[in-house]
Amino acid sequence: MEETLEFAERTHHGKPQLPLALRLIRNTGVKTRHLVQPIEKTLHHPGLAERNRIYELESKKRTPPVIEQALTNAGLTAHDIDAIIYVSCTGFLMPSLTAWLINHMGFRSDTRQIPIAQLGCAAGAAAVNRAHDFCLAHPRTNVLIVSCELCSLCYQPTDDNTGALLSDGLFGDAVAAAVVRGTGGTGIHLDHNASHLIPHTEDWISYAVRDTGFHFQLDRRVPGTMEPLAPVLRTFAHNHHHNAGNLDFYIIHAGGPRILDDLATFLDVDRKAFRHSWATLTEHGNIASAVVLDAARRLYEEDTPAPEATGLIAGFGPGITAEMTLGHWETHTT
Amino acid sequence: MEETLEFAERTHHGKPQLPLALRLIRNTGVKTRHLVQPIEKTLHHPGLAERNRIYELESKKRTPPVIEQALTNAGLTAHDIDAIIYVSCTGFLMPSLTAWLINHMGFRSDTRQIPIAQLGCAAGAAAVNRAHDFCLAHPRTNVLIVSCELCSLCYQPTDDNTGALLSDGLFGDAVAAAVVRGTGGTGIHLDHNASHLIPHTEDWISYAVRDTGFHFQLDRRVPGTMEPLAPVLRTFAHNHHHNAGNLDFYIIHAGGPRILDDLATFLDVDRKAFRHSWATLTEHGNIASAVVLDAARRLYEEDTPAPEATGLIAGFGPGITAEMTLGHWETHTT
Repeated sequence: MEETLEFAERTHHGKPQLPLALRLIRNTGVKTRHLVQPIEKTLHHPGLAERNRIYELESKKRTPPVIEQALTNAGLTAHDIDAIIYVSCTGFLMPSLTAWLINHMGFRSDTRQIPIAQLGCAAGAAAVNRAHDFCLAHPRTNVLIVSCELCSLCYQPTDDNTGALLSDGLFGDAVAAAVVRGTGGTGIHLDHNASHLIPHTEDWISYAVRDTGFHFQLDRRVPGTMEPLAPVLRTFAHNHHHNAGNLDFYIIHAGGPRILDDLATFLDVDRKAFRHSWATLTEHGNIASAVVLDAARRLYEEDTPAPEATGLIAGFGPGITAEMTLGHWETHTT
Repeated sequence: MEETLEFAERTHHGKPQLPLALRLIRNTGVKTRHLVQPIEKTLHHPGLAERNRIYELESKKRTPPVIEQALTNAGLTAHDIDAIIYVSCTGFLMPSLTAWLINHMGFRSDTRQIPIAQLGCAAGAAAVNRAHDFCLAHPRTNVLIVSCELCSLCYQPTDDNTGALLSDGLFGDAVAAAVVRGTGGTGIHLDHNASHLIPHTEDWISYAVRDTGFHFQLDRRVPGTMEPLAPVLRTFAHNHHHNAGNLDFYIIHAGGPRILDDLATFLDVDRKAFRHSWATLTEHGNIASAVVLDAARRLYEEDTPAPEATGLIAGFGPGITAEMTLGHWETHTT
């Protein structure tokens, strides 16, 4: 945060938006972030072609070790994977990175490729839900989820509206992977999934596509979206005989501090219930679709739930869309 | 084709690539194509921002009537749809058009949004396969597939390599929609699906992303890919007790004349077996992910199979990826 404030002071020096920029950065609560390039390079826009070249280079460098770790954690090898869901809204490759991963990491030629680029921050939970669907459709298969969000490659030096200034202080880069096993393993057994679009909010989070790439546009009403979404989460849990305000664990998209604070208030849960999302936000920033995977990692590593403990995964993103999952903790020895 | 040849003569006048361009255009066999804009406007590149603005405008104008028709054909209303799979590789919107469609066409707020942008021409068959999976995962649900391929918005006036010259004569614009019903209806009952990536061909069909947008890159080896893919289709059919060379109907991606000719040869089927794909190619050009939906429309409208007739859907695209489906014709009165 100190470096970000320092660079903001230099970037906006003498301009009217400086005090606002500094306040917005401080309010994110983001203490540390990762960037794929040094900050000086990040602030310079070398053109869309070069940005996308860096995206390709860095995604090919950084996803394999994370995928290897996810496979090891799941007790599987590349050969056991039947589908790869690749989510990323910060670079564009066609073919998707899935083709390269299959060729270079020993996945089978018949691995299904499911690349999703347009669900933004909601794509992490959407990937979990589509992986759940795939395993329901094809019992005993396994799905690899890969999230690659190099948000800093969407930094636009000329954008100085409030939404842009906020996102400059909020988003961080991350690569994450997870495996959804069709059978066995230890972790969250996915029970139910659902999606919800808040009507007529499609302009609230969006990209403007220009010759300089994706320009992130954020409406000032976005931080207030937990008020309409909390009842949706309540109804979803209630439909499956659970109380959304009284679950054993929560994996919530850390869109920003207001999102987490508001959702706790509207669901009437203790602020600490979202501790893994807070830790992600503080240590990495908003890492888009990777947030829920990082928060889940913290649950698995630091805070293993008791058998049968029930929890909620919820991702939020453009649309405004919420992707929701109910699951319970399950342990298998094989 | 006459107009295309005429414009090519003007565009490449006095340049060494002119004879090649004319030969490539003639060899496509594409007699007519649709373009969302007049040809003079199509040939002018107004910048990526403007191109994408036209994509947004045209996709919002042209998809709703096609979707209405698809719903009517399926005997359903927007309210009956549980998921929308939107495939398009020729423009980029975030949020995906799915959000706008839900808001403006009366789809339910809990409709799942599955936008896929990075499977190119294979995305039509991939959408069918993911819709099949969704209905297997959630019995009695219905999935809407929307394909919006405005290929002319990816025309790059400065590209004059062989692959670019070929694609300038080959690709057409199209919007298509289809419904996969979980139960009931009349049409192809989806039985099995699979995917295959030809190893180490990820550079053969690709986009270069530049400040002028997507630049289509086509390797000269692509037209030869049916030789390795035919045995894959054979094995897929054989695994499910069918002979890929002796099915009742075929819905094949019309990538180009060589693709259709070669596949017929290598599968040892009569050239006429792919008549619906040939008709699509001749009348519309290669319309990317919409090809298989248009070829399927011809089967439904002109050539209704007998009950229990078995057929194959196959899409090919970047990766090089093949998406395959086996199904049989089924008639329900409700």
